[in-house]
Amino acid sequence: MEKFFIPNSVAVIGASSKKGKIGYEILRNVLSSGTKTYPVNPKRKEILGLKCYPTVEDINDEVDLAIIAVDAKRCIDVIERCGRKGIKYAVVISGGFKEVGREDLEKSMVEIARQYGIRIIGPNCIGVYNGSNGFNTFFQRNMQLPPAGNVAILTQSGTFGIALLEKFAQEGIGVSKFVSYGNKADVDEVDLIEYFLSDGATEVIAMYVEDIGRKFFERDFSKPVIILKAGRSKLGQRAASLHTGAMASRYEIFRGVCRQKGVIAADDFEEFFGVAKIIAMQGLPKGNKIDIITNGAGPSVLACDFIENTELELAGDVVDLTGSATASDYIKAIDESKADIILLTFVFQDAPLAETLDELYREIAKRKKFFIALAIGGSFVEEQRKKLAQLSIPSFDEPRVAIKSLNRVVEYAMRK
Amino acid sequence: MEKFFIPNSVAVIGASSKKGKIGYEILRNVLSSGTKTYPVNPKRKEILGLKCYPTVEDINDEVDLAIIAVDAKRCIDVIERCGRKGIKYAVVISGGFKEVGREDLEKSMVEIARQYGIRIIGPNCIGVYNGSNGFNTFFQRNMQLPPAGNVAILTQSGTFGIALLEKFAQEGIGVSKFVSYGNKADVDEVDLIEYFLSDGATEVIAMYVEDIGRKFFERDFSKPVIILKAGRSKLGQRAASLHTGAMASRYEIFRGVCRQKGVIAADDFEEFFGVAKIIAMQGLPKGNKIDIITNGAGPSVLACDFIENTELELAGDVVDLTGSATASDYIKAIDESKADIILLTFVFQDAPLAETLDELYREIAKRKKFFIALAIGGSFVEEQRKKLAQLSIPSFDEPRVAIKSLNRVVEYAMRK
Repeated sequence: MEKFFIPNSVAVIGASSKKGKIGYEILRNVLSSGTKTYPVNPKRKEILGLKCYPTVEDINDEVDLAIIAVDAKRCIDVIERCGRKGIKYAVVISGGFKEVGREDLEKSMVEIARQYGIRIIGPNCIGVYNGSNGFNTFFQRNMQLPPAGNVAILTQSGTFGIALLEKFAQEGIGVSKFVSYGNKADVDEVDLIEYFLSDGATEVIAMYVEDIGRKFFERDFSKPVIILKAGRSKLGQRAASLHTGAMASRYEIFRGVCRQKGVIAADDFEEFFGVAKIIAMQGLPKGNKIDIITNGAGPSVLACDFIENTELELAGDVVDLTGSATASDYIKAIDESKADIILLTFVFQDAPLAETLDELYREIAKRKKFFIALAIGGSFVEEQRKKLAQLSIPSFDEPRVAIKSLNRVVEYAMRK
Repeated sequence: MEKFFIPNSVAVIGASSKKGKIGYEILRNVLSSGTKTYPVNPKRKEILGLKCYPTVEDINDEVDLAIIAVDAKRCIDVIERCGRKGIKYAVVISGGFKEVGREDLEKSMVEIARQYGIRIIGPNCIGVYNGSNGFNTFFQRNMQLPPAGNVAILTQSGTFGIALLEKFAQEGIGVSKFVSYGNKADVDEVDLIEYFLSDGATEVIAMYVEDIGRKFFERDFSKPVIILKAGRSKLGQRAASLHTGAMASRYEIFRGVCRQKGVIAADDFEEFFGVAKIIAMQGLPKGNKIDIITNGAGPSVLACDFIENTELELAGDVVDLTGSATASDYIKAIDESKADIILLTFVFQDAPLAETLDELYREIAKRKKFFIALAIGGSFVEEQRKKLAQLSIPSFDEPRVAIKSLNRVVEYAMRK
């Protein structure tokens, strides 16, 4: 499936010359990655400075990947032409298939694709992103994309996919590859998990799903896999069926299977993101004993409340350095800690600490312990988050989320 | 208690000339609010361009408020001098009292204060902030402070107080007044709730507590009060006692009393902040029927899952405008909605919407409905959040938090 991520040449079928249109934005995004790009639209001779072709068969070159953004009804014909052209990979962005009751259109399209040996991602999706070279098939704009890294993101929801990518970008966490697979008419979660379990760049796999087949679980998971499943309730399942045509089975069954296979089923979006970032940045802890070191005890009291019913064990009392703490107070406490995990709570706004931040980061970088950070605030704190991310330290802005995510990671680590 | 918030003159006792020291930062903050300020420190003749006095009694002027940042052991003497000077209000920032086992120091200090009729906020706190004039007693730096508004914040944790203020600032939500009351040796939550229930600028009261007395509940709450209580568990209570000397009673009892009196007990920090901002910006909804309007269905599926076990009722199916939606699609759906509450989910990054944002905001401003927004993303989305806040629309970046917070607001509204 490499060509989905590193195509030598791409045809954008349904390219548009009008800014704001999906067919325009996709073309723009593909072009900006430096990939050889061919817009296809019978109504235009040229778009964004590129020669525009009436059909994909008119392109005088090999095409590795087709990105299709035309009406659902026309997709069957388009896929036929792609097949005749010899294209083997297609991303169908267009909606209007199973999720609106037109499963017939989807089935016909896939049938033709199979005749020609074309693999299809979608339909009704936003496609792919390759962290290492920036290639993407998106129609989004004003999006921050994350740097290259070790987390693969798989999603049935384009929206969640975008949200997750931006959050990764904001916090400086890297992504290997991203796939929004929509209605999964052809390429599904089974194809994807097989690919990513062997993808060298990927160490952690994070998935958002509305439905997931049993076949997905028929394997050993050699890498940490975190799944956020929606459509858990009647209301959610109805919304899911209208979204991607998903027919979700009972949530408790799903949770049970995950537990058996060592797959982490996240309770909500924040836990999902929290677990992914802890494992991506720190790996797995060697045990469950935790020390909390802080210069402002409030959030630590709540953190302790949340620790109560988890696998975590406090190694000792909260180490409260008080509001007059400087970097060296933190470093001393870190060096004295014998815990498996250190939760550093920072009130960055307290001037004595703010004055000594360079020293703090410099010295923490020399200590190879399992760190997570908790800090709540505005733009100054956001800057510090980025600095912590550069030290590969995941930081949280809410005690409940920090503890819950950490607990899931510890549960997983203690299983192995 | 007005003089705590609008003092004509302030003495900063324990002022320091060294940047980064608590006594320096407080002086700086007080000065920058334009209040007449007198630094007190026997070792200095001048700090920050102001004449520095050896003791507070040497000041040749009336002093309304004393902010005290000297060692706990010296506070008794300092309070005595303030008393002789005729000062009636003091904020004791210093720690080293009950929370480290020196309740005796605290009791002595308050005894002397009572002899002179001095009210004390603290000790072991960060003091006050007045949203309308910017006056504050903080030693923090690089802090964004929120604008003037209708929410009063009361907190036993300075750290949480800072976090909450910055979050309010970040999201453009206004604060009437803020009090961090630390060990509550004198002024306590009973004094404060009485004050704020009659404070004209305050419409919503948000409190973080580690312990809270029964007397607090012996009244009718004429304004919405939201409380985040920490120290719910053995672990948390131990941490709380080391923090402020709090002796917390059983959490279930607390929840029960809140339910009886119509006080909202928040489960966690995000729900606490979420409820406060919904009520501050939109007030109370007239019913529990909710419509979800979105251009990207993923988060809506999860939102529906979370709606399932709440007081909220979906008015109809999720209105999925799809990724090609523009402003006018949203406005049309808003106008067609008959629900009490409209949850607008925005994928701002989708170009068709991004192109029409001016129209979106202009038209939404004309519709007087009960709106909350959900949007997840990076800096572009953060900018949109601020624009929504200008329209007084609270926005969330996580479906679970949005629904849970909204549910608490609806529960409260349906009680009244």
